[in-house]
Amino acid sequence: MQLTETHRPTLDQALEAIRTRAYWSPHPEHPKAYGESAPADGLAAFEALRGTRFDLDQPGTDDWTGGEVSPYGPELGIEYPHPDLDVLLPAMRAGMAGWREAGPETRALVCLEILSRISARTHEFAHAVMHTSGQAFMMAFQAGGPHAQDRGMEAVAYAYAEQVRTPAAADWSKPQGKRDPLELRKTFTTAGRGISLLIGCNTFPTWNGYPGLFASLATGNPVLVKPHPRAVLPLALTVRVAREVLAEAGFDPNLVALAVERPGEGIAKTLAVRPEIKIIDYTGSTAFGDWLEANARQAQVYTEKAGVNTVVVDSTDNYKGMLSNLAFSLSLYSGQMCTTPQNFLIPRDGITTDAGHKSYDEVVGDLAASVGGLLGDDARANALLGALVNPDVKGRLDGAAGLGEVALPSRKITNPEFPNAVVRTPVIVKLDGAKPDTEAVYLTECFGPVSFAVAVDSTADSLELLRRTVRDQGAMTVGAYTTSAETERAIEDVCLDESAQLSLNLTGGVYVNQTAAFSDFHGSGGNPAANAALCDGAFVSNRFRVVEVRRQA
Amino acid sequence: MQLTETHRPTLDQALEAIRTRAYWSPHPEHPKAYGESAPADGLAAFEALRGTRFDLDQPGTDDWTGGEVSPYGPELGIEYPHPDLDVLLPAMRAGMAGWREAGPETRALVCLEILSRISARTHEFAHAVMHTSGQAFMMAFQAGGPHAQDRGMEAVAYAYAEQVRTPAAADWSKPQGKRDPLELRKTFTTAGRGISLLIGCNTFPTWNGYPGLFASLATGNPVLVKPHPRAVLPLALTVRVAREVLAEAGFDPNLVALAVERPGEGIAKTLAVRPEIKIIDYTGSTAFGDWLEANARQAQVYTEKAGVNTVVVDSTDNYKGMLSNLAFSLSLYSGQMCTTPQNFLIPRDGITTDAGHKSYDEVVGDLAASVGGLLGDDARANALLGALVNPDVKGRLDGAAGLGEVALPSRKITNPEFPNAVVRTPVIVKLDGAKPDTEAVYLTECFGPVSFAVAVDSTADSLELLRRTVRDQGAMTVGAYTTSAETERAIEDVCLDESAQLSLNLTGGVYVNQTAAFSDFHGSGGNPAANAALCDGAFVSNRFRVVEVRRQA
Repeated sequence: MQLTETHRPTLDQALEAIRTRAYWSPHPEHPKAYGESAPADGLAAFEALRGTRFDLDQPGTDDWTGGEVSPYGPELGIEYPHPDLDVLLPAMRAGMAGWREAGPETRALVCLEILSRISARTHEFAHAVMHTSGQAFMMAFQAGGPHAQDRGMEAVAYAYAEQVRTPAAADWSKPQGKRDPLELRKTFTTAGRGISLLIGCNTFPTWNGYPGLFASLATGNPVLVKPHPRAVLPLALTVRVAREVLAEAGFDPNLVALAVERPGEGIAKTLAVRPEIKIIDYTGSTAFGDWLEANARQAQVYTEKAGVNTVVVDSTDNYKGMLSNLAFSLSLYSGQMCTTPQNFLIPRDGITTDAGHKSYDEVVGDLAASVGGLLGDDARANALLGALVNPDVKGRLDGAAGLGEVALPSRKITNPEFPNAVVRTPVIVKLDGAKPDTEAVYLTECFGPVSFAVAVDSTADSLELLRRTVRDQGAMTVGAYTTSAETERAIEDVCLDESAQLSLNLTGGVYVNQTAAFSDFHGSGGNPAANAALCDGAFVSNRFRVVEVRRQA
Repeated sequence: MQLTETHRPTLDQALEAIRTRAYWSPHPEHPKAYGESAPADGLAAFEALRGTRFDLDQPGTDDWTGGEVSPYGPELGIEYPHPDLDVLLPAMRAGMAGWREAGPETRALVCLEILSRISARTHEFAHAVMHTSGQAFMMAFQAGGPHAQDRGMEAVAYAYAEQVRTPAAADWSKPQGKRDPLELRKTFTTAGRGISLLIGCNTFPTWNGYPGLFASLATGNPVLVKPHPRAVLPLALTVRVAREVLAEAGFDPNLVALAVERPGEGIAKTLAVRPEIKIIDYTGSTAFGDWLEANARQAQVYTEKAGVNTVVVDSTDNYKGMLSNLAFSLSLYSGQMCTTPQNFLIPRDGITTDAGHKSYDEVVGDLAASVGGLLGDDARANALLGALVNPDVKGRLDGAAGLGEVALPSRKITNPEFPNAVVRTPVIVKLDGAKPDTEAVYLTECFGPVSFAVAVDSTADSLELLRRTVRDQGAMTVGAYTTSAETERAIEDVCLDESAQLSLNLTGGVYVNQTAAFSDFHGSGGNPAANAALCDGAFVSNRFRVVEVRRQA
């Protein structure tokens, strides 16, 4: 395998990108970029997996399990290996020494080869992501393909950079006045910590999974992948590719393995406290994230949990652009992103815009109309909304109408290709922020296509509420619209104080809920929504340790 | 204050040193390097502090407390401010925004100015460290002065390097085919996490305290210093200097403050779970370190706890050098270093040396004789041993003779200058590693001048025991002597697997218990003795978060 020739230039570009944080991506977003036969090949490959046993030739497989049903209706019918942990975990550890000896560069290049082979199969992955997450095809293609691969490569770049900050060897000579200097020869080896556990999520199995997977693998750790039971296939494919590449490159394929649980088994809880597990990456509910942080004491735990995302609406010089930008943010994947805005804080006296003063009711009405217009055509609505990922989301959506005055009711949309898909437009509910009983409503994450237009007394009131929301509930994103430099500064100060990522005055084709690898940080790691950011030094630096050996020279 | 002109070249040198890990120190080790009057001035300054109230002009001082008694006998008689936390903590937070706005470079340079003023007063600090830790003067001077300052500067360098890995701003332009590119202007600000708590230790108040203190301050956090009740003065002086420099540089002096507790108050436990405390640095007992890790869940917790340090004795081509090197390691500061060897694993059939085969009894006897010779002269013994830091150490020493056959009894030494000092030479106890009841003895840390010569069946046996010791008990250091390349490799593998720092075949003027800032890692952070290493990226990267603000361009 010509790892260096093939991938070192890419690694260098990735290292440059994380240094400048300018735009860069090696993975094309356009389906057509993958070749003429790629769409049909990818679909065929996906279809060929259905109704089969997904064998990975892992040690310690004691059963077969799996029951994925696409949010679009069809059962996938795929069975995956169920692990005997007492066999699988020792087998995974066995490859660690060889992987350590390979060193940071070889590990990085092997990871890039894995990503490269995943990239070549992006169409197949897109169908796998679509039929597990409920994302529409184009989003599953982009977010589940190139964007996820970008995040994985970003993690490899950070991991490599962090490991080579310390030289492999140093000669140390300390002057002793007239006497001979003290001299030592020192070597520094980066050593992984142990088995890393990836606990995948339902909505973005690859995008949220790749950073931790590749950060851990690149820093010398075996990675055990425990997918969400509803979204196994994208990560099972990933594990298969990783094992193939590892074996071809002369390493133990068991450095990456899959653990799929039986229904109701709760294997993540068992795994999380196993002494062999030294690192955990998790995306999911706050309740289980908090449990992991409290109980998996033997491991480094990286969590992305829930938050309440806020948009402060103060004023704008592009009213129409603001509305269409926000309408898109609310609609994309039916609001089922951890970065989708939930609360719009709007002064009850209205706001100043380039289209004149707009009352609270007008702003909310215009936002509702903008969402309605965007999703008025069923074909476009299907392409934007995808399907509701699970019945819990539908339950919250159905309950939202009872929470306040409905400014925009949810509409049921039929997907002609998949008639069993549950497709719904977002609901917008009006709430009076001054009423004490509404606070419990909007200060709780309501994951899915539900947002609240909260009437506040003033923008000062918004900022106080924003601060409290981020501090107490956490936030993956904050958005704001203002034409006042003073207000802008005040919003920035809140975000700096409370560690929240801020998007200001977005009116074009970039949305508050989207972040780009190599440039944007996903989460801050500094508020309750997540204890880590994608991706920075802190995300990789504690996944390995530097062991020094010093010898008298 | 000409911060840039004065300190930027030093910062650049420090950055280069952590990149190469070659020898470097800007702080002279020789007492004479500080000027002719420095020794007398330093002593006078120390004496002038005795019997006074150490006022820091901190907000929220509700009482005065302090009861330090020098391990050399004299009471210091100094009273320190006792904090009303509900006043002091908010006052400390108030300075955070201004400190954040200063940016990474200014923060680093202010930290270097603090270190520079501490350096100028090294003689005064030496007496303060000596009369709180019990270190002999020369060690208090070097370890408490230049070596501690080096470690502080190393932390500043890591903190600065970590923060500037992300640029302050980036222009992002994403091509859109024939359409205009998407463009965003992004800013990235490093923001501290909140108040950082330093819980100081008795034996090395400055050396173990400065890394955390300066890492947190340089990354934008206020630092509250909670010294060990027996070792307040060195850190109180540090806080005073820091507050002076901060105020002169135009920042809030309350960014650094002191919290001294009343006898038995246990203020560390109260502070550790306050919501304002976001970072904790701790050096001390395993029990309290484990408590902090389990309970201070709102904070990033960096601990250095206890370990059992092992020396594997397999063979040597410099028997005399090995013996004298080990004798010095055992004697320095009466073995009261977290890095002092405790267990010598020696094959019961003896070892091969350049002076012929040596039986287990001969090796132990020769080591005992070497220690005896080194400490035979009382003046030199006093200069090496210092005083026992507290009655607990003396208790363990007194009890050691009952643990096995004594190869070298402890000897009481009189210090003519300080007749009340408790000065003792180390004890060496022989144990049979094969006897099950001895394991509980040598696999427990026995902090102080007590070491065990453990007879093992073979070097293979040593390695198995070494692995188990590091894995279960932790280790700050591992030493080994071998002339076999194969054995050397096997020892390295154990240390790489279990994340322990290894010194091989030291026979000259470098000792297993000494590490040099900018080059050696102190601890690995990967075994139970400590969850962090001094100093690496992981030690600084989670003390701040990067907050991004992106605006449509």
